[in-house]
Amino acid sequence: MAVYTEISDEALRAYLSDYSLGELVAFRGIAEGVENSNYALKTTTGDYILTLYEKRVDPAELPWFLGLMRHLAAHGLSCPQPVAARDGEALRELCGRPAAICTFLPGVWPRRVRQGHCGPLGAALAELHAAGTGFTAERPNSLGPQSWAPLLDRCRAGGDAVQPGLIAELDGQLEGILRAWPRDLPRGQIHADLFPDNVFFLDDAGGAPRVSGLIDFYFACTDFLAYDLAICLNAWCFEPDFSFNITKARAMIHAYQSLRPLTEAELAALPVLCRGAAMRFLLTRLFDWTHTPAGAMVTRKDPLEYLKRLRFHAAAQDIHAYGL
Amino acid sequence: MAVYTEISDEALRAYLSDYSLGELVAFRGIAEGVENSNYALKTTTGDYILTLYEKRVDPAELPWFLGLMRHLAAHGLSCPQPVAARDGEALRELCGRPAAICTFLPGVWPRRVRQGHCGPLGAALAELHAAGTGFTAERPNSLGPQSWAPLLDRCRAGGDAVQPGLIAELDGQLEGILRAWPRDLPRGQIHADLFPDNVFFLDDAGGAPRVSGLIDFYFACTDFLAYDLAICLNAWCFEPDFSFNITKARAMIHAYQSLRPLTEAELAALPVLCRGAAMRFLLTRLFDWTHTPAGAMVTRKDPLEYLKRLRFHAAAQDIHAYGL
Repeated sequence: MAVYTEISDEALRAYLSDYSLGELVAFRGIAEGVENSNYALKTTTGDYILTLYEKRVDPAELPWFLGLMRHLAAHGLSCPQPVAARDGEALRELCGRPAAICTFLPGVWPRRVRQGHCGPLGAALAELHAAGTGFTAERPNSLGPQSWAPLLDRCRAGGDAVQPGLIAELDGQLEGILRAWPRDLPRGQIHADLFPDNVFFLDDAGGAPRVSGLIDFYFACTDFLAYDLAICLNAWCFEPDFSFNITKARAMIHAYQSLRPLTEAELAALPVLCRGAAMRFLLTRLFDWTHTPAGAMVTRKDPLEYLKRLRFHAAAQDIHAYGL
Repeated sequence: MAVYTEISDEALRAYLSDYSLGELVAFRGIAEGVENSNYALKTTTGDYILTLYEKRVDPAELPWFLGLMRHLAAHGLSCPQPVAARDGEALRELCGRPAAICTFLPGVWPRRVRQGHCGPLGAALAELHAAGTGFTAERPNSLGPQSWAPLLDRCRAGGDAVQPGLIAELDGQLEGILRAWPRDLPRGQIHADLFPDNVFFLDDAGGAPRVSGLIDFYFACTDFLAYDLAICLNAWCFEPDFSFNITKARAMIHAYQSLRPLTEAELAALPVLCRGAAMRFLLTRLFDWTHTPAGAMVTRKDPLEYLKRLRFHAAAQDIHAYGL
């Protein structure tokens, strides 16, 4: 939950005067979102989201993110659309930060994931991967496997205070992951952070959840498509007690494959991709945990939740562990 | 910023099924608000605010608060209206907590107070006091002067760690405040927490701010009307460097008096009412500061900001210090 920057009403009005969005009606901070400041903006022409990009986003990369969102929407994916100001430019500045207004997406993110969410999520992920084809600009995954050893090194001093023996266990796990990491799999534009709070659902006429849109593309990058699925298996298919729900996983993978069948190589790589995805979130959480001063007004997420996931994946012999 | 309770989509749908509000369109946590969990709810019939009342609100008092909001709106004040469900009941339960849906108010709260806000705020306060006439049920001010000595006692152990000598200074100040506290002034329903984030503004046709609504009545109570003005003087008329802006104060008081002239006794009491208001916010902040575990996910507000206000009021000889 994050509103880092307070925007004065004069600054807001001056900012909006560059757009043709009608008169300001309401403006509220949104509790969701960790990296940037998000505000619900209502004008006489409708609802929008105003985002101020805070320090964790590199301003030089914003045109790539906004360009990807435009491309995905132009190819049928429901995701926020950057709104251009009168001069045609969507990426602007407000309160000394890069800022953009995007369209508002209807829907509700699932606070508790049910099996019925996982099929639609798998299909939406395949649609995202299909829609990304043709967006040829590449963005390397700055949190990909090459980043994990340096990240682990920066957690070395404080890590064992989180749990005794943690660093040694992670050294062993990481060595195994990097040794088994695939060299060559189908690549493309991936979301790389498709957690439940980034996926909106609405019920269809029969009361079943359908995906109404995907948000928050600011970790998106160019990487193995199946790695995105591995991230989703981590984010959607573990129960609150960290047991793996094979029924949810099967629903997700089947729905994904109904639109984009996985290759033999992708299926064989899925366990190590899942281990890698668990390692990635474990390490960034561990870094935040060990580098955030106590009392800072930031929600620190427990890194050990991902140690449990990592152990599950490490024990998985093959794709059968994921319901296939 | 506060969303304390995560509501599952099933729970939300079940809750909404008791209302005639159309289909769910969107549901987002709102960053503003400290005491309760607030969500922006959009349905096919419009925008609403869903509030879950967290532990600081006594459920037994909620009917009084909602009744006051209904009464004020029926008497012309723009404030959130509790929306009744199909059974006629507005106060319900969700996720084990009392919950209510209120109407959505347009407007933007001023992140930075300008002089142009203070006149309209003063007038809105007088309108609130007028609209409250006729709502005869009383709610004692649980954070009134009788509560300050016990609150200070509970800060005694930790207070001097916030600033050396703080407790002795507060003992002296409190003694002076309670000695000078008025016995009898015009009483009525007061908001008692009318800070800028509880007042929405929109620009009128000429671009000048006008109050579009008041929110968050969960500290409202029956007390001296002029004490509400004293709270607003504290909340709106100090600059970021804690200097007192006499021009803002004059604008606020004049606008208030244009609708409800203050009595001689109220004018004479204003300095001590201001001291008391500063003491009240200082003490609750100091209590929170000294009783919140480091690392808790709550924004602790600096109590010493109110020590500076308190010292200003203590030095004020009379109403001239406030621009009159």
